[in-house]
Amino acid sequence: MKIGILHPGDMGASVGHSARLAGNEVYWSSDGRSARTRERAERACLIDCANLNEVASRCELLLSVCPPQASREVAATVLESGFGGTFVDANAISPGRSRSIAATFDGSGVAYVDGGIVGPAAWQAGSTRLYLSGAEAGTVAGAFKGGPLEPRVIDERIGSASAMKMCFAAWNKGRIALAAEVLAAAAHFGVGDFLRSEWGGDATDARIDTARRIADRAWRWEPEMYEIAATLASAELPDGMHRAAAELYSRLASFKDCAEPPDREALLAALLEPCER
Amino acid sequence: MKIGILHPGDMGASVGHSARLAGNEVYWSSDGRSARTRERAERACLIDCANLNEVASRCELLLSVCPPQASREVAATVLESGFGGTFVDANAISPGRSRSIAATFDGSGVAYVDGGIVGPAAWQAGSTRLYLSGAEAGTVAGAFKGGPLEPRVIDERIGSASAMKMCFAAWNKGRIALAAEVLAAAAHFGVGDFLRSEWGGDATDARIDTARRIADRAWRWEPEMYEIAATLASAELPDGMHRAAAELYSRLASFKDCAEPPDREALLAALLEPCER
Repeated sequence: MKIGILHPGDMGASVGHSARLAGNEVYWSSDGRSARTRERAERACLIDCANLNEVASRCELLLSVCPPQASREVAATVLESGFGGTFVDANAISPGRSRSIAATFDGSGVAYVDGGIVGPAAWQAGSTRLYLSGAEAGTVAGAFKGGPLEPRVIDERIGSASAMKMCFAAWNKGRIALAAEVLAAAAHFGVGDFLRSEWGGDATDARIDTARRIADRAWRWEPEMYEIAATLASAELPDGMHRAAAELYSRLASFKDCAEPPDREALLAALLEPCER
Repeated sequence: MKIGILHPGDMGASVGHSARLAGNEVYWSSDGRSARTRERAERACLIDCANLNEVASRCELLLSVCPPQASREVAATVLESGFGGTFVDANAISPGRSRSIAATFDGSGVAYVDGGIVGPAAWQAGSTRLYLSGAEAGTVAGAFKGGPLEPRVIDERIGSASAMKMCFAAWNKGRIALAAEVLAAAAHFGVGDFLRSEWGGDATDARIDTARRIADRAWRWEPEMYEIAATLASAELPDGMHRAAAELYSRLASFKDCAEPPDREALLAALLEPCER
């Protein structure tokens, strides 16, 4: 198949690379993208087109892999391009947002498939799953078969794949935020050594190190936490855990794209510093 | 020493029993308490007094071990009794609440010690710690030395022991609430089997079973979650995680004192049912 990726960040480039290894031709457009994105796309051997309209006209299948807050805009540009194939929104968005984006394609001839990626960038087999739902989910899964990114079809309902992604991230990223908050509180109250004696040194170090390692991308997680909060609220579950996680991750925004993880003290100090809003 | 326990629930009875094993005489009063409390106190071989005033007049050290929302009232009855010894508030309350209760004893001749119990009811050595802070923390620790409940002095500041308890419970009980919420969301959206495939069967079962096992006491945890929220807010950390946990635990209140843990379906259904407030 001819597959287009909009827009290849680290995850998107790995998805494109997976699609290539599964036997497809994979396109993107460098139009308006950064040098870093270009480098990633070249490393993944994606074929560059002049602009998104050219990607849309050459491809039967388009995948949107972008930050959650950009997902609606990317879908709108695809709609405007006159694309008539299958469109997968593979972003970390709530099932409700996915359904609302799907509705914008009604009557356009585009087959909308809901997607959600679980795991790290899919450079290696066995690490990452692409969950899919919708009437054409099986077609998309077929295109990825045999590549490192493992496709998994949930059902025909738009929203199921997004719900799966949201649930997985709710635990994974919620738990990291909870541990970081407790460590910051213990530091604030001067009881860090006692908490360490209760948790054990290894578990304490592991929790601190996890928070240190994700600090460079915490700014990206903030909008995802709001998507999770919306997901939980739509199930009439309390949304406060992930609203709090969003706030905690926003406090780590200064570590964006840091070359080295912050040390323990810098991490805890940032967590304890409320953001001006 | 002569030590009084106010009021021996399961945890309080174990604290009294520990104090006995450490070589003290331990008192309580059955006045106005339930048959179940009486049974517990008798099993722990605590000496019954006619009323709280008699306990206060016979003892040099009083410990308050009660639900967080009752801690202020218990302290007030001790103040009214004319007690002139050392009073330990060992309840799951915020450091701010502990300091505010301590302030009610100013000028009364009572030495206030902040306490926090970490672990299950202290029937066995090695399971449970009594954190202590305040000028007389060492005296209290000395009284418990050699019993199954291990005393640990943090420092002289009122609030440190409560902060330690709050941090420990913030992680422990927050994590259980987070897992329960994610499991409920996955059930709501029909993706429970896929979440199970990501988590693995053993980890999934462990998370469900933990939530099932604590369902009978979730009603007790709700007020504790609000104390944790207040603790975090006082450190200028977001309080939403534990406000959400409070709401989730309140949804399990119908399992109060159930003889058997609810089954998986009943647990998830209760979590998904918003409470009328």
